[in-house]
Amino acid sequence: MNYSERALAILKTAGAKEGDTLLVQGKDDEQKGVLMPHHQFSDPDVIVIKLKSGYNVGIRLNEDVFVKVQDRAEERARPSRHAKADAALPTVAIIGTGGTIASYVDYRTGAVHPALSADDLIAAVPEISSICNVRAKVLYSIFSENMDCAAWVGLARAIVCEIEAGADGVIVPHGTDTMGFTSAALSFMLEGLDRPVVLVGAQRSSDRPSSDAYTNLVAAARFCATANASGVFVLMHEGPSDTSALVHRGTRVRKMHSSRRDAFHSVNATPVAKVSFEGSVEFLADHPVRGTGKLVLRDRMEPKVALLQFYPGMDPESFYALIRAHRGVVLAGSGLGHVSAKMVEMLAKAASDGVAVAMTTQCLHGQVNLNVYATGRDLINAGVVPCGDMLPETALVKLMWVLAQTADISEVRRLMTSDLQGELSPRREIDD
Amino acid sequence: MNYSERALAILKTAGAKEGDTLLVQGKDDEQKGVLMPHHQFSDPDVIVIKLKSGYNVGIRLNEDVFVKVQDRAEERARPSRHAKADAALPTVAIIGTGGTIASYVDYRTGAVHPALSADDLIAAVPEISSICNVRAKVLYSIFSENMDCAAWVGLARAIVCEIEAGADGVIVPHGTDTMGFTSAALSFMLEGLDRPVVLVGAQRSSDRPSSDAYTNLVAAARFCATANASGVFVLMHEGPSDTSALVHRGTRVRKMHSSRRDAFHSVNATPVAKVSFEGSVEFLADHPVRGTGKLVLRDRMEPKVALLQFYPGMDPESFYALIRAHRGVVLAGSGLGHVSAKMVEMLAKAASDGVAVAMTTQCLHGQVNLNVYATGRDLINAGVVPCGDMLPETALVKLMWVLAQTADISEVRRLMTSDLQGELSPRREIDD
Repeated sequence: MNYSERALAILKTAGAKEGDTLLVQGKDDEQKGVLMPHHQFSDPDVIVIKLKSGYNVGIRLNEDVFVKVQDRAEERARPSRHAKADAALPTVAIIGTGGTIASYVDYRTGAVHPALSADDLIAAVPEISSICNVRAKVLYSIFSENMDCAAWVGLARAIVCEIEAGADGVIVPHGTDTMGFTSAALSFMLEGLDRPVVLVGAQRSSDRPSSDAYTNLVAAARFCATANASGVFVLMHEGPSDTSALVHRGTRVRKMHSSRRDAFHSVNATPVAKVSFEGSVEFLADHPVRGTGKLVLRDRMEPKVALLQFYPGMDPESFYALIRAHRGVVLAGSGLGHVSAKMVEMLAKAASDGVAVAMTTQCLHGQVNLNVYATGRDLINAGVVPCGDMLPETALVKLMWVLAQTADISEVRRLMTSDLQGELSPRREIDD
Repeated sequence: MNYSERALAILKTAGAKEGDTLLVQGKDDEQKGVLMPHHQFSDPDVIVIKLKSGYNVGIRLNEDVFVKVQDRAEERARPSRHAKADAALPTVAIIGTGGTIASYVDYRTGAVHPALSADDLIAAVPEISSICNVRAKVLYSIFSENMDCAAWVGLARAIVCEIEAGADGVIVPHGTDTMGFTSAALSFMLEGLDRPVVLVGAQRSSDRPSSDAYTNLVAAARFCATANASGVFVLMHEGPSDTSALVHRGTRVRKMHSSRRDAFHSVNATPVAKVSFEGSVEFLADHPVRGTGKLVLRDRMEPKVALLQFYPGMDPESFYALIRAHRGVVLAGSGLGHVSAKMVEMLAKAASDGVAVAMTTQCLHGQVNLNVYATGRDLINAGVVPCGDMLPETALVKLMWVLAQTADISEVRRLMTSDLQGELSPRREIDD
């Protein structure tokens, strides 16, 4: 739905257009901010303006409200793909894939839809243009639960195109649900990557007051443009307040809360860096630096790999057929990497059938160790590959990648137990 | 293997027997502690003594070592089922199930075997006899990855027997791998429980210096004997040092590290209490008190329930047959409880076939909300039951229990979305 006649009249009287900075005076207060796009499903009487703090507020237009244009969009250097490049600034490519970071709320139903174009996103974040020259495009517009091997491959290729065209870094706005899977997939596919690729998301859509889209995007731009780091990273809020973001290694990061803005954590690793929303970048862990690799795109993935969590009473019989329909399976075992005796037997059979079977821990923290208990030694004898302190999700993605690189099971084992992209620590003592 | 001739001669000379308190003098130092049982696979030259701190040390007996008995076991009140009951003390039953807490290390291979009897366990922890009268028995001697519905039922019945025989509380030493599943199962099966049942484990076997078996057992005895609480709990170390244990609600606890002693955490809930190893009990959250329920054993469980974690590219076709082989399935979806569009379609089919489909979040922290995104609303239309902030593992066990109580799908839905044993919070605002 468009604006109501009343709202349109008020905006027309003021001569206000999308992107203009407005002063909106109510009976008791006034707000100043940039007029945001009006969406099809938004309330027809409400305008949304983005405050200087990055927060969006919705204001209902009625006879008590007075709107005044303070700064016209045409008069500002609007940051977009059409903006004149500043030769002194680095170039960052933004490749949109969808998700909450590029979404808006349907105010009739309260539901969230993917909507904004890459240009809209940049228009909503003018600060980026002072940090870098931006080239933006939308590759996908999907919720991340619908990402799959084919989508990862398309994304990896799009990133390589941007790098070959000279981008100093690439930002990938992405749905948070499966962002950790995609960052792991890109980590393995973009071998020898010599600059940063940063996946960034939001837990609140960009038209909501508490949105983290703005702050996370600016921090990602800053990191991509200026940080001396290479590799695939995920950047999200560090805490519940708007002070800083953490940059996580793409193979070590997991979404650990369904709704908080600080949902993402590095597991079994220290975050790589902290980016304050005031602008500073502080490194927290060793990391590869820029310009030291030679990019080789290894974009073949084997989709027939399953991830299964062990639980008491898991029925080997009904899982056997499922596993046989796959070329590989990653178990998230209990504790140090255990399954029931009956499941060990079934996994031994699957392994002898040629299925690659890898073991991680459902504890998430800590490592697999198959040398402590009898169950673990039985699993080793069954041919199960222990995955150390690799996340189950990363092990799934890595096995998809490894099985597309080689059919030799001993090479599969060697690759799965080698640290390729920071996904695996050297074996540590079990006493913490 | 038994002690070597040399070790035997040294012990015989000293007149030292198992359970005696020894002073062991070496060339440069001396240690004082209780002589522990010698196991079949232990080093034949090494004795293990338990220090007053609860730590065990192994000491190699050779010509430089002098052993002296300081206190004979017979002269002390040996705490065991044969100990004379002290009418002033509460009675606590210990029902052993196996696991590391009742294990010892095979020094040839470094592997851990379940071994100690319940009496051995108590003999190793003399402090318990000053806290309560103990009745101990070994019900199972298995690693907890081999627990299943049938084992849970047997354990629930054994607990009811002990309560009917007058136990003021029950301690269940249990392997840590699936302790959270068992505590959830007991929570639902022991309806109206009016005293504490405490599952306790160890991450280091009882003959290792860093064992947490001793401290956790003493803290469990103290809580069972004295705390004004009822329900099923898990008690484990609070931090890496030996200062205190946390008591977690049985439906809210998860093993979050494969090896640390402080591996157990309450998820989406505050731990119920803190027990300092010096003896105090401090409550941290609301909890049911003693003597307010009427125990009804509801020990039927439906084993044909599966737990599945969603991942990108999950193949609906191969999972459909698996799900149809079960009466219920709990998904650990991404984010607020999502799966891919293809999986939604398949789950709708399974639900219309009569399979109970429940949704949790693989984030573990936070809650499911199927009203925010289009995917969630599609899942509601598909008949999927949202499980709020319930742990995936607890939802699995609860669905096993619910499907054994009723075949009516609307009653299944009502029970799954009701808080029965503290497993589910009232719906909260998503903006934490």
